[in-house]
Amino acid sequence: MIKVALDAMGGDYAPSVCIEGAVSAVKKNPNIHVVLCGPEAEVKASLEKLGYTGNQISVVDAPDPVAMDEHPVMVVKKKQHSGLVTCVALQKKGLVDASVSAGNSGAMMASCLMILGKSCDEFSRPPIGVALPTKDRRIVLVDGGANVDERASTLVDFAIAGSAFAEAYLGYENPKVGLLNMGEEEHKGPAVLQEAYQLLKSAPVNFMGDVVACSGYTGNVVLKLLEGFFEMHQEMFGTIDTPAGKRFAEMWDYRATGGALLLGLNGIGIIAHGRSDALAIEKAVDAAAKYAEADVANKVNARLAAIKSEEAPKA
Amino acid sequence: MIKVALDAMGGDYAPSVCIEGAVSAVKKNPNIHVVLCGPEAEVKASLEKLGYTGNQISVVDAPDPVAMDEHPVMVVKKKQHSGLVTCVALQKKGLVDASVSAGNSGAMMASCLMILGKSCDEFSRPPIGVALPTKDRRIVLVDGGANVDERASTLVDFAIAGSAFAEAYLGYENPKVGLLNMGEEEHKGPAVLQEAYQLLKSAPVNFMGDVVACSGYTGNVVLKLLEGFFEMHQEMFGTIDTPAGKRFAEMWDYRATGGALLLGLNGIGIIAHGRSDALAIEKAVDAAAKYAEADVANKVNARLAAIKSEEAPKA
Repeated sequence: MIKVALDAMGGDYAPSVCIEGAVSAVKKNPNIHVVLCGPEAEVKASLEKLGYTGNQISVVDAPDPVAMDEHPVMVVKKKQHSGLVTCVALQKKGLVDASVSAGNSGAMMASCLMILGKSCDEFSRPPIGVALPTKDRRIVLVDGGANVDERASTLVDFAIAGSAFAEAYLGYENPKVGLLNMGEEEHKGPAVLQEAYQLLKSAPVNFMGDVVACSGYTGNVVLKLLEGFFEMHQEMFGTIDTPAGKRFAEMWDYRATGGALLLGLNGIGIIAHGRSDALAIEKAVDAAAKYAEADVANKVNARLAAIKSEEAPKA
Repeated sequence: MIKVALDAMGGDYAPSVCIEGAVSAVKKNPNIHVVLCGPEAEVKASLEKLGYTGNQISVVDAPDPVAMDEHPVMVVKKKQHSGLVTCVALQKKGLVDASVSAGNSGAMMASCLMILGKSCDEFSRPPIGVALPTKDRRIVLVDGGANVDERASTLVDFAIAGSAFAEAYLGYENPKVGLLNMGEEEHKGPAVLQEAYQLLKSAPVNFMGDVVACSGYTGNVVLKLLEGFFEMHQEMFGTIDTPAGKRFAEMWDYRATGGALLLGLNGIGIIAHGRSDALAIEKAVDAAAKYAEADVANKVNARLAAIKSEEAPKA
């Protein structure tokens, strides 16, 4: 049984979609147990309303609200009884295998960083790793939006973490790593990318291709744009009734991805989309269980430690 | 008659697609004259091969080659007899109304800046303004990729130039201006955007909506991504045979846009896509003629000067 703690109060449509999503996730998978973290009476009333009476969902009382614009570090310090902080704290105590929130993403990042901790001291900042579809295969975009204003060396760490994730999660052997830049020439683009490019050339990763590293700001713009374009496409055409049309709708519906994993943490922290509906929450819980079952975090961390130790003597 | 100078040697598939594109543009519009700038004998031989014998195309000899990775300022200084520099220099001499190149975009930007000059000293850097489709209406993305590593005040100038362009070209009254950022809260995102946000709040433009200002790096990533997504769609589905399908294909085919205008210059400098085919070049020539005919550059510049003079007393 994989145990996933879910912030019942996270996201624009919480708590209703969180609770619906949890119910759908456990109904589809007898091997998942969801711990809903939120105001106990409210959450239990919602479960009852949905008619859920099984034993794959439990509730932990976490009444503190967290606003979308609250300062991340203040949330961790002052809102220990919020759904967001509680879902991470339960993992630290060994009571669950993964933690999911669609709430304040900066606060979720800070909670994971401060409570679970980084897996490796030499690794600068945990980024969000997202497996994005392309026509033929999946690539890893890293960072999807957990950070801003990174140094060149942090972008290189993102590339390394993305490479470890592509190996551990997508099963790619010796994945190729590149930087998201505006031209093919290495002297093009922002100064920090030019510096990162030079650093990456000497890093023990395979340069160019399966993994695209970029600033969290840029990665987040990329994700929002793809989402917007997909939504416009669906509004214009709906799901096109051909095998390609179904594949396209499955591939690009951001809800199908569920949530994205923070890389380089001692544990599994999943950041789900603030706009998540019940389906997105269901898929995020499902993704969390899959990451836990496949031991992805530990595999990423082992690979990360190996790459970092290879890198160290060169510094 | 609108005269457009076209760099015959610019872009990945030059000169053939440039010459084909020029021939198509003049065949469709009796009011356009194209001055092809490139190695005279080669260009004339290509025109003959295409069977073009009309008088809407002339050739100016400009034999120097410009590589995609050549340093922009060096191109302006040392390659005065290149198609790229010549097409801009002809405009400075008053011999043509607009200049188009699909070649080294940094060099095209530098040529326009150094030869045509900025329209307004207080304006920091000319950005590329792109009118992008959305489901309902067009918005202006600015900068599309002419700059990198901008200061906050430069991003504010992009917003102002984009606002002037939305008025002059799209006919929007008092367009709303925003920054491309990763969250709705004003304290989110990179430090430079937070600073620009504060500056923009006190600038004499209408904040949020029709115009999206961002770094040239980010804007370029946005354009490439939309292009990639559209191409994937076309490969999967082709043009869908419904009114929505045709509209989608027209809206999102980057070739239909032709080239993008540099804003805030004394003249019309058009940067076309390096991957341009003959259709894209035809449309870029056509766009250049439209900008010239509608006097867009002067209108943008007048509006820019007015906004800048409103802004100045506050500084």
